[in-house]
Amino acid sequence: MSRIGIIGSEGRMGQAIAEAIRAAGEELAGGIDRDGDATTLTPKCDLLIDFSSPHGLENTLDAAVAAGIPIVIGTTGLEERHHWLIDNAAQTIPVLQTGNTSLGVTLLAHLVREAASRLGEDWDIEIVETHHRMKVDAPSGTALLLGEAAAEGRGVGLANSAVRGRDGITGKREAGTIGFASLRGGSVSGDHTVHFLADNERLAFSHLAENRTIFAKGAVKAAQWLLGKEPGRYTMPEVLGL
Amino acid sequence: MSRIGIIGSEGRMGQAIAEAIRAAGEELAGGIDRDGDATTLTPKCDLLIDFSSPHGLENTLDAAVAAGIPIVIGTTGLEERHHWLIDNAAQTIPVLQTGNTSLGVTLLAHLVREAASRLGEDWDIEIVETHHRMKVDAPSGTALLLGEAAAEGRGVGLANSAVRGRDGITGKREAGTIGFASLRGGSVSGDHTVHFLADNERLAFSHLAENRTIFAKGAVKAAQWLLGKEPGRYTMPEVLGL
Amino acid sequence: MSRIGIIGSEGRMGQAIAEAIRAAGEELAGGIDRDGDATTLTPKCDLLIDFSSPHGLENTLDAAVAAGIPIVIGTTGLEERHHWLIDNAAQTIPVLQTGNTSLGVTLLAHLVREAASRLGEDWDIEIVETHHRMKVDAPSGTALLLGEAAAEGRGVGLANSAVRGRDGITGKREAGTIGFASLRGGSVSGDHTVHFLADNERLAFSHLAENRTIFAKGAVKAAQWLLGKEPGRYTMPEVLGL
Amino acid sequence: MSRIGIIGSEGRMGQAIAEAIRAAGEELAGGIDRDGDATTLTPKCDLLIDFSSPHGLENTLDAAVAAGIPIVIGTTGLEERHHWLIDNAAQTIPVLQTGNTSLGVTLLAHLVREAASRLGEDWDIEIVETHHRMKVDAPSGTALLLGEAAAEGRGVGLANSAVRGRDGITGKREAGTIGFASLRGGSVSGDHTVHFLADNERLAFSHLAENRTIFAKGAVKAAQWLLGKEPGRYTMPEVLGL
Repeated sequence: MSRIGIIGSEGRMGQAIAEAIRAAGEELAGGIDRDGDATTLTPKCDLLIDFSSPHGLENTLDAAVAAGIPIVIGTTGLEERHHWLIDNAAQTIPVLQTGNTSLGVTLLAHLVREAASRLGEDWDIEIVETHHRMKVDAPSGTALLLGEAAAEGRGVGLANSAVRGRDGITGKREAGTIGFASLRGGSVSGDHTVHFLADNERLAFSHLAENRTIFAKGAVKAAQWLLGKEPGRYTMPEVLGL
Repeated sequence: MSRIGIIGSEGRMGQAIAEAIRAAGEELAGGIDRDGDATTLTPKCDLLIDFSSPHGLENTLDAAVAAGIPIVIGTTGLEERHHWLIDNAAQTIPVLQTGNTSLGVTLLAHLVREAASRLGEDWDIEIVETHHRMKVDAPSGTALLLGEAAAEGRGVGLANSAVRGRDGITGKREAGTIGFASLRGGSVSGDHTVHFLADNERLAFSHLAENRTIFAKGAVKAAQWLLGKEPGRYTMPEVLGL
Repeated sequence: MSRIGIIGSEGRMGQAIAEAIRAAGEELAGGIDRDGDATTLTPKCDLLIDFSSPHGLENTLDAAVAAGIPIVIGTTGLEERHHWLIDNAAQTIPVLQTGNTSLGVTLLAHLVREAASRLGEDWDIEIVETHHRMKVDAPSGTALLLGEAAAEGRGVGLANSAVRGRDGITGKREAGTIGFASLRGGSVSGDHTVHFLADNERLAFSHLAENRTIFAKGAVKAAQWLLGKEPGRYTMPEVLGL
Repeated sequence: MSRIGIIGSEGRMGQAIAEAIRAAGEELAGGIDRDGDATTLTPKCDLLIDFSSPHGLENTLDAAVAAGIPIVIGTTGLEERHHWLIDNAAQTIPVLQTGNTSLGVTLLAHLVREAASRLGEDWDIEIVETHHRMKVDAPSGTALLLGEAAAEGRGVGLANSAVRGRDGITGKREAGTIGFASLRGGSVSGDHTVHFLADNERLAFSHLAENRTIFAKGAVKAAQWLLGKEPGRYTMPEVLGL
């Protein structure tokens, strides 16, 4: 039985993770939230799960590194400098960062990469996602993860091909771009669809989360897999052997 | 048999309208495109159908007013000043301007208005549309038409409640807003979905156009209805008796 | 505070209703299940909510009539003889029977009726639903309720126009029919889509339930509305003033 | 330039294929329909494309074998004995039989096979398709093709796991089965969705054909690939190198 601590313990995901830790037979070591200090939590933990905000990520990583314990990061809205901090921490401890911890989304990303590698640029790629009205960032971390998979399949970088927030006089669609659109409303736990659109036919690959339990369950599964690994940066497909 | 002239005759919609005019037993009087002068066309016509761009709208309206003939306007991407020009012309001739000429979309707008009037602000409204890769403006005229219907149902103005091009750190969704998102790709003739999202349940109302023939057919039907009407500004629901 | 008893109290819906009764500030008077005797429950109750199976409906109605208390019936899989039993009971007590107690579905049925009344027989109607793997009957009560709404809008009877379980060499689709299809899998709480399909365009009207709470909440709302009514048979649209 | 003959030349698909043959720079050698005799056509042809009905398949295959020319078969509604006839002919001539000739569907089947091989039996598989009102058989050949791909991915036979025409008191869903449902209406060229449904999450993989041109184009592409091959039975994935 491993002792797991939660960063962002009072949020909806934090509560779902607490329940998933118990359901998986692990020990909930404690949690911190908004004003909490991660260094008070780490001595009690074998591993951290962070579903908070990018704001406190630096302190959390410092605490995990100081304690020498692994961390699973499911926080979304990360910018380039956050990824740099994660890479740095991964030289000392095992870190798994992902935009989505569900089995279904991980497989979806795998198939989107395959489809993008098989279909030429005459198939336009568009990604649309829907989340509940409380979500503060767009596109979702999962949409970006799926966009990365599509870009990888095509052998291009997402940064150069992403088109976000399409509005107004946009001109014709540029070949090779990957579009993103975000809907917000109700209590939607997360719907994602990747469209491939060609002349006269279309393919669409979708994932729908009925509630947050799948993400919490997947985060705990990732945590169990991460314990005992060498320092380094890991991904969900590795957890699932894809 | 009425003589109908087409503004934007070489575009995809222009060609579809030419075919629909013949199919409906009317006479195709001629057409102009990009650099054409509408005053050379009007003497041969009993009515104009305009599916071109907002750019030449002023000249087209002037020519129609000068000739005293009705006009159906299906051009999208109109701004406030274009609507002012249309209102002005409608004092002299019958004008029907619409973001969508299909029977299905016209009924959809009617039902969206009804749904919005029945459901409170705890039901968030989001409108998503997909069009072919050649479309230059977003959201589509039809999406805005559906947004207007939703806003009317709620008794608010769309200008104050529309949220377009959601991207980045947006904060929580504001109650009462109407969101718009646009996908572009392939040869899609026009897909529109209006979502109503509440806690734990969602409604969605969709229209899918398999090709352009429905818009062309509806535009000609509107033209036939408009002939002989008094000067004024008319709408598609009036054509269909809704 | 009214005392409400549950028939089918140990099923998933029964448990959700128990929670909704408490959330609505009413009193949970008790419940019975499979082998329970409704006459032991009625003396403690002001009203019954039945989400069990058609099997015990006759006994339940007899007990409600004997006790002179209203009943809300959400049981699905009812046959003609069950409706006859309900009509009979409704001469003595207030009865509200419905295939779906959610606000969203009730509004959807209202709009489907309207659409069917506006669109001619050149618009084919098809209803498809998805439910969890434990559901034992098909199509769902809600799909039939939506089919009834469509048939009413067209001014025909559903019994004569329904086409169910399409499979094999079916021949061309007969004009005026209403098709039903059922998917089963996972933990889906209930997805329903009513399609209207014409030449070159389609409309689709959907409802998606994220979980059972909306049905439980709606059943308790119906119960509160039913208390104090005259004997008779009532419907969900009446509860919502549609 | 190869000379291609069409079996079923007057049907909608036959006409689309005639156009695709010309567009691909090949020669349309002629065609026969309902009462036609294939032996009058084969002397003028280097290859046959058959999109007619299972009824005349035996005569068509005999004529192709007698003439020693390849054949592409896109006819749907085939039964076991038809497959036996095809296997027999394939000992003498190259034969490519497929339920769907589009690039998109061929890739979709490939990804469905992969998904089914990765996901356990706790993910229920359901396949739903929509076609125009003139289609006489259900499920579509493409739906069965996708079902075969799913069954292969799971390492089971489709015949033993298919559940078709679900209706009435069906009982709980049996683990490991693959469900099929068919909608009919309007002018839909072909929509297919394969659902994978687990507890609390779902995946869906869809293909939508806007019109018949993609099937005709794919059939001609398959014909070009098949010319000059050794006798044997071939498949669409081979054409596309999957």
